Amino acid sequence: MKTGFIGLGRMGSGMAARLCHAGHEVTVFNRSAEKAVPLAAIGAKVAKRIAEVSDCEALFTMLADDAAAEQVVFGKGGVLESLPQGAIHVSCSTISVEFSARLSAAHREAGQGYVSLPVFGRPDAAASGRLYLVAGGKQDQVEKIRPLLEVLGQKTFHVADSPESANLVKLSGNFLIASVIESLGEAFALVEKGGVDRKMYLELLTSSLFDLPVYKNYGRMIAERQFDPAGFAARLGRKDIRLLLGAAEDLKVPLPFAGILRDRFLELAAQGGDDRDWSAIGGLAARDAALDS
Amino acid sequence: MKTGFIGLGRMGSGMAARLCHAGHEVTVFNRSAEKAVPLAAIGAKVAKRIAEVSDCEALFTMLADDAAAEQVVFGKGGVLESLPQGAIHVSCSTISVEFSARLSAAHREAGQGYVSLPVFGRPDAAASGRLYLVAGGKQDQVEKIRPLLEVLGQKTFHVADSPESANLVKLSGNFLIASVIESLGEAFALVEKGGVDRKMYLELLTSSLFDLPVYKNYGRMIAERQFDPAGFAARLGRKDIRLLLGAAEDLKVPLPFAGILRDRFLELAAQGGDDRDWSAIGGLAARDAALDS
Amino acid sequence: MKTGFIGLGRMGSGMAARLCHAGHEVTVFNRSAEKAVPLAAIGAKVAKRIAEVSDCEALFTMLADDAAAEQVVFGKGGVLESLPQGAIHVSCSTISVEFSARLSAAHREAGQGYVSLPVFGRPDAAASGRLYLVAGGKQDQVEKIRPLLEVLGQKTFHVADSPESANLVKLSGNFLIASVIESLGEAFALVEKGGVDRKMYLELLTSSLFDLPVYKNYGRMIAERQFDPAGFAARLGRKDIRLLLGAAEDLKVPLPFAGILRDRFLELAAQGGDDRDWSAIGGLAARDAALDS
Amino acid sequence: MKTGFIGLGRMGSGMAARLCHAGHEVTVFNRSAEKAVPLAAIGAKVAKRIAEVSDCEALFTMLADDAAAEQVVFGKGGVLESLPQGAIHVSCSTISVEFSARLSAAHREAGQGYVSLPVFGRPDAAASGRLYLVAGGKQDQVEKIRPLLEVLGQKTFHVADSPESANLVKLSGNFLIASVIESLGEAFALVEKGGVDRKMYLELLTSSLFDLPVYKNYGRMIAERQFDPAGFAARLGRKDIRLLLGAAEDLKVPLPFAGILRDRFLELAAQGGDDRDWSAIGGLAARDAALDS
Repeated sequence: MKTGFIGLGRMGSGMAARLCHAGHEVTVFNRSAEKAVPLAAIGAKVAKRIAEVSDCEALFTMLADDAAAEQVVFGKGGVLESLPQGAIHVSCSTISVEFSARLSAAHREAGQGYVSLPVFGRPDAAASGRLYLVAGGKQDQVEKIRPLLEVLGQKTFHVADSPESANLVKLSGNFLIASVIESLGEAFALVEKGGVDRKMYLELLTSSLFDLPVYKNYGRMIAERQFDPAGFAARLGRKDIRLLLGAAEDLKVPLPFAGILRDRFLELAAQGGDDRDWSAIGGLAARDAALDS
Repeated sequence: MKTGFIGLGRMGSGMAARLCHAGHEVTVFNRSAEKAVPLAAIGAKVAKRIAEVSDCEALFTMLADDAAAEQVVFGKGGVLESLPQGAIHVSCSTISVEFSARLSAAHREAGQGYVSLPVFGRPDAAASGRLYLVAGGKQDQVEKIRPLLEVLGQKTFHVADSPESANLVKLSGNFLIASVIESLGEAFALVEKGGVDRKMYLELLTSSLFDLPVYKNYGRMIAERQFDPAGFAARLGRKDIRLLLGAAEDLKVPLPFAGILRDRFLELAAQGGDDRDWSAIGGLAARDAALDS
Repeated sequence: MKTGFIGLGRMGSGMAARLCHAGHEVTVFNRSAEKAVPLAAIGAKVAKRIAEVSDCEALFTMLADDAAAEQVVFGKGGVLESLPQGAIHVSCSTISVEFSARLSAAHREAGQGYVSLPVFGRPDAAASGRLYLVAGGKQDQVEKIRPLLEVLGQKTFHVADSPESANLVKLSGNFLIASVIESLGEAFALVEKGGVDRKMYLELLTSSLFDLPVYKNYGRMIAERQFDPAGFAARLGRKDIRLLLGAAEDLKVPLPFAGILRDRFLELAAQGGDDRDWSAIGGLAARDAALDS
Repeated sequence: MKTGFIGLGRMGSGMAARLCHAGHEVTVFNRSAEKAVPLAAIGAKVAKRIAEVSDCEALFTMLADDAAAEQVVFGKGGVLESLPQGAIHVSCSTISVEFSARLSAAHREAGQGYVSLPVFGRPDAAASGRLYLVAGGKQDQVEKIRPLLEVLGQKTFHVADSPESANLVKLSGNFLIASVIESLGEAFALVEKGGVDRKMYLELLTSSLFDLPVYKNYGRMIAERQFDPAGFAARLGRKDIRLLLGAAEDLKVPLPFAGILRDRFLELAAQGGDDRDWSAIGGLAARDAALDS
């Protein structure tokens, strides 16, 4: 399928490469052009302008936030102006529910398709096609891009016809992970102050009730108090909790755990920790308890 | 090994039966004697008094709470008076850290051994020897009862020399599970109000990032809003969070998530839900959001 | 002084009337013109367009929120286009800190003055000149409008040169009041369930340690569980807490009490209480405790 | 009236002196006898044993906590054994609701009266008879000691027939004060980080909406970040919040603000701040926001 890809960060590069390897006709675009070089080496065409990369059937975007997506889509010479009628914009960025709804309306009005496709997984999963894909959009549009989805992820969940529901689900997933981190942070602080060895405790948890990568990975970081380098930066976690709370405000859903996570990310940011791994919020309970770090 | 067992509730019965089947010489005692009948049928001797069941090398207790354990151990004619010197009291009850420390001191003074052995697992795991055992106590005492532990659990974690550390770890484990329940409750309320089907959402979570029994079991109960009959009653969850916060108070460890869980269990209890499954706290976020139940 | 006034709600009408009575030359403007009739009767000139009302030395705006203010100031034919150079826009609306900073920059660039002047007090205080005025802006601009301030308020606090600081202070004041409401709600629920009469308790509090109108007024509403009609609607309280948390996010300040207030207002809104007095959040603790209402 | 007084700390000394000055026949007792010397100088008889001080019509106790009161009342040779039938034990200590109920039952059984009389006010108010007295107990017993109450306080509130209700009310009052401290701590941290001078902000708050000693005194301590020496030690505030939450647990009343206060006091204690004034929890929001202290 004739495919475009905008946004070649660590996630986007891996995904675009998957599409190339699978034999799709891929054009890529990135603000800083050097990111496109490795993809050109495996057959991608490199676009100089958004209008060029938009000349396709399915245009993926994987961008940092609402602001970046707004510029790429609504800006002069942007996606909205240049995507052909009937082509589908596949938005993989973790953006706000509200902005996703705005994208949906704009594309519909322009006669273009729009599928929201946030993903779960880290860069290595993106590069190896083992992402979990959360799709929001009309059934026929999702079906049309199905061959591409099969290359990118190990599983696709089509959660609703409204694209923005997929963004809400994505944010809720990150909330669940952040809740795991915070609960581990509190549990570790408590048992350590009670005389239990952190590594022993980690082993106990993750070889019994919590034998799951999320607990193993973040538990290890907390047990070792090692939050650098960041796999997923705290500033991004902070953004996601802010977007989650924004959606909860619009939907009128009180979320007490999320309120605490918000304060944790703010405390971390105030201390200069925005660039650490987001699991660094799991070290704050120990700090509150005056445990040595 | 000559073994005694006091407390034949759903957990204790299964554990005592395991010991019988494994060929140990087991004497049992329960306040209401009819609970002992099935065990007598498989070879257990039934004691009429605590003094009788205490005549052993290792005496297990699996009781409801501090008050019950206090009566059995410190009461007239109780364990402390009747357990032979050198014999070991193995306490499996989920009791407070403070009371466990008191038991430890009393047994030491009386020349008796004391191993704290709280367990993770539901009655079916108790009956089939698949419990996770958390042991606190002196190395030699834990080694002495090792053959019994191998019959009762799939794995034993010896967390510290001080018996009460095991109780702290047990409470922290229940805190982690309760945190999963609350985080799921909030996530379900949010996505449902945002238009996502609960069953679809459960499927998505538990077949991707959260492929773990804890998430599957409690997620299903929340998705179906079905919290009866109780596998583990809310009043017990409430007690455990109270004990956890009591230990945290003594150790001076702030625990914001635990504070929220406390309020959730109190809200549930105020509404008459103390006998429902403890996962019923996972329905309160939906109530706060005015979702139909 | 030649004065303009945009926004003739309950607060704005009273303030504009004060300025008329004090002999200033006042022109008023309101979206729905009938609100201007009583002011015309006491000598105000009624403008048909913003350009007309802007022809003055000091232009007051008292509007509902950021969106309303944005339209009035930045819209075509709006304040920014029509206010004379050197004239001062005096913004009394409770708007976001971020938007106030944006107003400040825009007016500076246009050669116009800008004083942020949020107020504390209810409509009766506005009508009688007993408001507390919180001023943010350059010293010389604040001095220039001083004669008007003396008519409007019993006291003016010039908190900082940056206008948006005044908005932050205003939001913090509403946060403090909302905290009083929530703390009273919790205290009343507790003592009532413990057998103490609510009216007696109110009398005790407000004739001893808490002899203050804020405690008396809101305490009485909570004691009587009477939250209608609204003096200040819950939806406005909800907005203010949202703006407060938005400012706290930008400044990286964790605010645990504010997080709880946010959830309270969302819970109230979910139950359809957005139009009740904001003190209705003080009834939620009783609801959580399953007290009859 | 023939009056006894046990517990001559800073509060008790002032109260006992008031009773002496008013011409009552006062016998005093204190664990460390030197505290009685100034009272002997103004006419008090000094008892050597509890049995001696108990020989009276009304016996006041003003002790540190449940444990101290338990020893004095239930210990061998204690109040319960020695107070004459028909005499009244007037307990002014801030004790738990549960323990107060236990005292009530024990005295009733022994044919003795019991009035719970916690007080609001600092040592200077005790010495000058300006305390607020919260009385719980039977009408006739409260009436009997009314002449003494008029000497001790500026106002007495008889809140309920059950003595322990007075203890609940006392705890709720300290909760309200602690909520003021926390809300001020958050507000100060926010506006300071937003560029507002702390002293100016204090002046604004306390000369407008919050013109009340509680706000003035604690606001000043927070504005000056000066929490030593303690007027009321953090460890006592921590104890009171623990007792409040214990009562709320028994009554099944969720209290989210109280949960946050609990964590604040624990955080302060973990950092070694248990002996500072309890308003030191009002400095933690600034710490979380990484403001210089």
